[in-house]
Amino acid sequence: MAGSTFGNRISVTTWGESHGKALGVVIDGFPAGLKLSEEDIQPYLDRRKPGQSKYTTARAEGDEVVILSGVFEGVTTGTPISLMIENKDQHSKDYGNIATTFRPGHADYGFIEKFGLRDYRGGGRSSGRETIGRVAAGAICAKLLNEVGITVCAYTKSIGDIKIYDFDLSERDNNPLCMPDAVAAKKAEEYLEACMLNKDSAGGVIECLITGVPAGIGDPVFEKLDAKLAQALVSVGSVKGVEIGDGFAASKTLGSINNDNFRMDNGVVTKLTNHSGGILGGISDGDDIIVRCAIKPTPSIAQVQATVNEKHEDVDIEIHGRHDPVIVPRAVVVVEAMCAITICDALLSHMTDRVDYIKEFYKN
Amino acid sequence: MAGSTFGNRISVTTWGESHGKALGVVIDGFPAGLKLSEEDIQPYLDRRKPGQSKYTTARAEGDEVVILSGVFEGVTTGTPISLMIENKDQHSKDYGNIATTFRPGHADYGFIEKFGLRDYRGGGRSSGRETIGRVAAGAICAKLLNEVGITVCAYTKSIGDIKIYDFDLSERDNNPLCMPDAVAAKKAEEYLEACMLNKDSAGGVIECLITGVPAGIGDPVFEKLDAKLAQALVSVGSVKGVEIGDGFAASKTLGSINNDNFRMDNGVVTKLTNHSGGILGGISDGDDIIVRCAIKPTPSIAQVQATVNEKHEDVDIEIHGRHDPVIVPRAVVVVEAMCAITICDALLSHMTDRVDYIKEFYKN
Amino acid sequence: MAGSTFGNRISVTTWGESHGKALGVVIDGFPAGLKLSEEDIQPYLDRRKPGQSKYTTARAEGDEVVILSGVFEGVTTGTPISLMIENKDQHSKDYGNIATTFRPGHADYGFIEKFGLRDYRGGGRSSGRETIGRVAAGAICAKLLNEVGITVCAYTKSIGDIKIYDFDLSERDNNPLCMPDAVAAKKAEEYLEACMLNKDSAGGVIECLITGVPAGIGDPVFEKLDAKLAQALVSVGSVKGVEIGDGFAASKTLGSINNDNFRMDNGVVTKLTNHSGGILGGISDGDDIIVRCAIKPTPSIAQVQATVNEKHEDVDIEIHGRHDPVIVPRAVVVVEAMCAITICDALLSHMTDRVDYIKEFYKN
Amino acid sequence: MAGSTFGNRISVTTWGESHGKALGVVIDGFPAGLKLSEEDIQPYLDRRKPGQSKYTTARAEGDEVVILSGVFEGVTTGTPISLMIENKDQHSKDYGNIATTFRPGHADYGFIEKFGLRDYRGGGRSSGRETIGRVAAGAICAKLLNEVGITVCAYTKSIGDIKIYDFDLSERDNNPLCMPDAVAAKKAEEYLEACMLNKDSAGGVIECLITGVPAGIGDPVFEKLDAKLAQALVSVGSVKGVEIGDGFAASKTLGSINNDNFRMDNGVVTKLTNHSGGILGGISDGDDIIVRCAIKPTPSIAQVQATVNEKHEDVDIEIHGRHDPVIVPRAVVVVEAMCAITICDALLSHMTDRVDYIKEFYKN
Repeated sequence: MAGSTFGNRISVTTWGESHGKALGVVIDGFPAGLKLSEEDIQPYLDRRKPGQSKYTTARAEGDEVVILSGVFEGVTTGTPISLMIENKDQHSKDYGNIATTFRPGHADYGFIEKFGLRDYRGGGRSSGRETIGRVAAGAICAKLLNEVGITVCAYTKSIGDIKIYDFDLSERDNNPLCMPDAVAAKKAEEYLEACMLNKDSAGGVIECLITGVPAGIGDPVFEKLDAKLAQALVSVGSVKGVEIGDGFAASKTLGSINNDNFRMDNGVVTKLTNHSGGILGGISDGDDIIVRCAIKPTPSIAQVQATVNEKHEDVDIEIHGRHDPVIVPRAVVVVEAMCAITICDALLSHMTDRVDYIKEFYKN
Repeated sequence: MAGSTFGNRISVTTWGESHGKALGVVIDGFPAGLKLSEEDIQPYLDRRKPGQSKYTTARAEGDEVVILSGVFEGVTTGTPISLMIENKDQHSKDYGNIATTFRPGHADYGFIEKFGLRDYRGGGRSSGRETIGRVAAGAICAKLLNEVGITVCAYTKSIGDIKIYDFDLSERDNNPLCMPDAVAAKKAEEYLEACMLNKDSAGGVIECLITGVPAGIGDPVFEKLDAKLAQALVSVGSVKGVEIGDGFAASKTLGSINNDNFRMDNGVVTKLTNHSGGILGGISDGDDIIVRCAIKPTPSIAQVQATVNEKHEDVDIEIHGRHDPVIVPRAVVVVEAMCAITICDALLSHMTDRVDYIKEFYKN
Repeated sequence: MAGSTFGNRISVTTWGESHGKALGVVIDGFPAGLKLSEEDIQPYLDRRKPGQSKYTTARAEGDEVVILSGVFEGVTTGTPISLMIENKDQHSKDYGNIATTFRPGHADYGFIEKFGLRDYRGGGRSSGRETIGRVAAGAICAKLLNEVGITVCAYTKSIGDIKIYDFDLSERDNNPLCMPDAVAAKKAEEYLEACMLNKDSAGGVIECLITGVPAGIGDPVFEKLDAKLAQALVSVGSVKGVEIGDGFAASKTLGSINNDNFRMDNGVVTKLTNHSGGILGGISDGDDIIVRCAIKPTPSIAQVQATVNEKHEDVDIEIHGRHDPVIVPRAVVVVEAMCAITICDALLSHMTDRVDYIKEFYKN
Repeated sequence: MAGSTFGNRISVTTWGESHGKALGVVIDGFPAGLKLSEEDIQPYLDRRKPGQSKYTTARAEGDEVVILSGVFEGVTTGTPISLMIENKDQHSKDYGNIATTFRPGHADYGFIEKFGLRDYRGGGRSSGRETIGRVAAGAICAKLLNEVGITVCAYTKSIGDIKIYDFDLSERDNNPLCMPDAVAAKKAEEYLEACMLNKDSAGGVIECLITGVPAGIGDPVFEKLDAKLAQALVSVGSVKGVEIGDGFAASKTLGSINNDNFRMDNGVVTKLTNHSGGILGGISDGDDIIVRCAIKPTPSIAQVQATVNEKHEDVDIEIHGRHDPVIVPRAVVVVEAMCAITICDALLSHMTDRVDYIKEFYKN
């Protein structure tokens, strides 16, 4: 089916494979009148680019974005914004038995069963490179959100068992793991070194903090704001779980504790706690929105693994080449992008929720 | 926005409020030729009906379903299946200050900010009664799935801190908590009694096991099978987290452990473990699909709580009347329904994924 | 597939068969805050009700609408509005060979090939009674449009060869054919009498005039305002053609004539002519919107017709019972409803087209 | 809103402006396993390319298509097919007062009202160049349709008042007007010469014949096969009307004539006439599908025209440069493309209409 599009009011369609000519995204329905150039988007792409640290693959990619349509004289026109990023490192090489063998932890087997064939080069469409289009679209949505005072910020919450303890957002960009806690980052680096020595890989948790969303955004039923955030995050490769606010911990506590009491604070309805993570009944409650997702260990490891090939024979596989021992740091900006798209979409949808809004808009 | 519809190939639209005349659902795009009567649907509704145990509200509702369209001579016709369940217990009563006060942990405040008004009777559209339509639709999807050998089965994994230990599915329907472990159920009952004494409430975790799904179902990008399951489950009120397979635990383990190795078993591609929970890269891998969701404690509690009213004054609130001290047991069938709808939708979508399928279909 | 829903921002889902228990519609995404009761909807339904004149079937139906959800204390709540109309005249009768024979000009054969079975009672889902839900939804959209100064008005333009000549809208409701020209209506009645004597039927053309739509509504590509109007109108049974503005006549004229010149008129951008029918490039141009559709003659006629039955045998068929010799007059309100839904949907969509609108909305 | 996507099962998203860097299309949900290369698409693009005759603009464009994704080793992979066509002739030039003046018959005024700004270069997004993406997508859908025996063929039915009389499809590609009648084509050329001498332009009618569609394709309500064809065709710029089968003529005839009788013919259900144009009740009836659309005269003419500018001043405008005096011949392949996309989409949707199909598919 056609599953490469996300969003109701805005629609984001990504395309491209790991080793095709290019990757890209079309953002349709984006409002007219936002100042936009490649310079707004490139910094986001640079955050997910390979080769940034020893924990990321050394693949040589500039990942330079080009705006092909939808912007005129530096301003969005309301028509589809088409962005393209060329693949530089797409020279054919010998994929050996990877071409015909199902890598454990990867989608290879599912692809063959689904489509009858697959682009085996670097995972094809299931590659993490598909997220380039998401990040580019997210950068644009984030810019629009900033115009109305909303910020979206993700960071690494844990790597393996090592969690952040002191939260200092300014530290996030000082370490290769995107952890807002220098001490935890150091420990996590040591943990990753050990993983790499063992030809093994690690996972982690990413948290995203969204501030400035007014109360009343989202929808009460299937399109709950947290339901869409959950879809958005689980749609990122390697995500195996999602939490809103207290998440699974909420299942163990009591109602008297978990309920956030309301009080007026300087004329503003305010929650005294934020167990809800800023969303109640699928609708924003005016508080910070907090979501988390669990990332599994990178499935590409150099250890020998038992598997099966396309001829349905038992075989062993060793995945050569350098792979990220942990994808969490590079996924941080992807999570941020998906949250930005989701919030942006819901924010626009709300503008037509009421007859009084409509009458005010069309009163002239 | 229009957010009461779920599904791509099949579309499920619920309608109705807690204390309106009726609730219902329209299932459009459902295939023709399935034998169907109210008897197929009613048992699912009875599982979520109030008044089944001392842990559920005593509201007197028969919740009897009527098929209004889409079935002719006992068989689905391919046209919209409209189902209605009348609300018997909708007599107006004095809602007191609940009508104008924001209940902590509820969507009341968000509704007012979003829509400018709200149906305060029993939560209106944000009531758990909205799930009646989901359960009815899920029953129909489950019947279709059974025709091709797929079963969907949910149960309570934990209540508060009390987890199931021995898994015996036949026990699930022997206790009011839907726990497939008699010992755990007993402990959980004791825990709930204590909660009730303290005018407090509890949460828990529901797990759903889906068997018989062939490999190749789902989609690689935004419509990943697990992403849609995540949306489906978080769209259920009170769900604050979702996991697929090992979920958050996967974030702490190593790639060498988390990767499920493949081996041939009697001519069938088989995974030796199932950390993936049956989904890799958004596509089913032929194994059992396992998802879990965290349910927060029921927000309606009889303790005095601090809050704010519609005039933006600080007030206290006590929520009278009998409320479920835990909604987990009644939510089990809702989780089952949402999983059935999601799997059914993806299963149909797959049938057009390949040119060889299309040529085979239209060869005559 | 799931094809019973129309609309992007608002979604209208009809359900029900000619002789099922009931018919209805769910309108999801409709804005909160519109005063609404059955009295707003019933007059529209009464306009399409059978038995209004000798040119409509005598079927005894009250077609009384009930609002089941989405309205609280007389005002829309923003949640799905569910409307139901019970079928009174659904007693089973002997359908004779109609049950197994493909009526010429009807969808019977297509239904069997598509679904493998069909509800043969009165055409089942392909009956004109399906439009009840459309009309009910249209009534609600028309009420919202009125709030912002937009009116939608359809009328019979021609019956067979007889066209209206003098246009006097006040005449429309004075004759059973909904013609805004008393003289033409009289001639058309004579024509229909002759058709009825010959057991034959007639067609005609309906025109819809939409006033008050500001310039800038609609979309430049696939969702052009006229493209959606075309889908909306051709989706009405028996419609075989659609025109916007000058329509097919535009294909025969010259650019210098067909182009509408602009001039300022009291500070307002004004077109000196309206060949465009109020839409240019898919976007409203501020002028009256004019669309027309061609209705084929009623396919149910009492003459003997050659056809085929479900066993694929050649047979003859006579369609007994009283059928409308022309459906044009009853389709007028259906056309009005479809236009109202389409315009309403586009009108809301426009509110989020620009960043300056968004900033203005969220400035507080 | 997001209106640049068409299709339910397959989704076609076009992007690009007349004078942007490039134009393109993303086709998502297209089945895996179709042999595909640029050579399959380029011939379709060449048919709509400028500079093919004296009746088309002399703009120098190669319109060479590049496949950027979705094809691996010459076969579609089931993932999004991204196609790009670079704009060669995008050098900036002096647009003079066209940049700030509303051209009569164009969407300029609507764009400004809708988006607050517009890309005035060559019409921007409302340019006929947007159809490049449609044609490319249509070429791919047409290839898939051919695999199951379906052909889609459009041609010019009339130019101004000059209709084809003798139908000889082999003539279509022998004259610059795409008329399947050499005599009519000659007359039409004379007519166009006269138009050009007067700095005027002409319109015409395009017909599309679709053969090989089995009965049972399409949907009974809003997604009727003819309703989607109507949307598809009216979404093409300059189309002001659509007919299916006898179209508007059907409104003037009698039921006894308009009904197509069925008879068995060598074991096949066959219609003795085809007034229906191959679609009854929104579902294909097994006969040839015939649709027509009316194209208005090219709005860009060199005569002086009265209009208004962005400052809302009355001004005169002369549109310099060479413009197609008639766009009908170049629109023929666009109509063909839109029909191919629509039929392809409906064909795939049908594969899941029945439980017996589903059981057969998943029986193993």
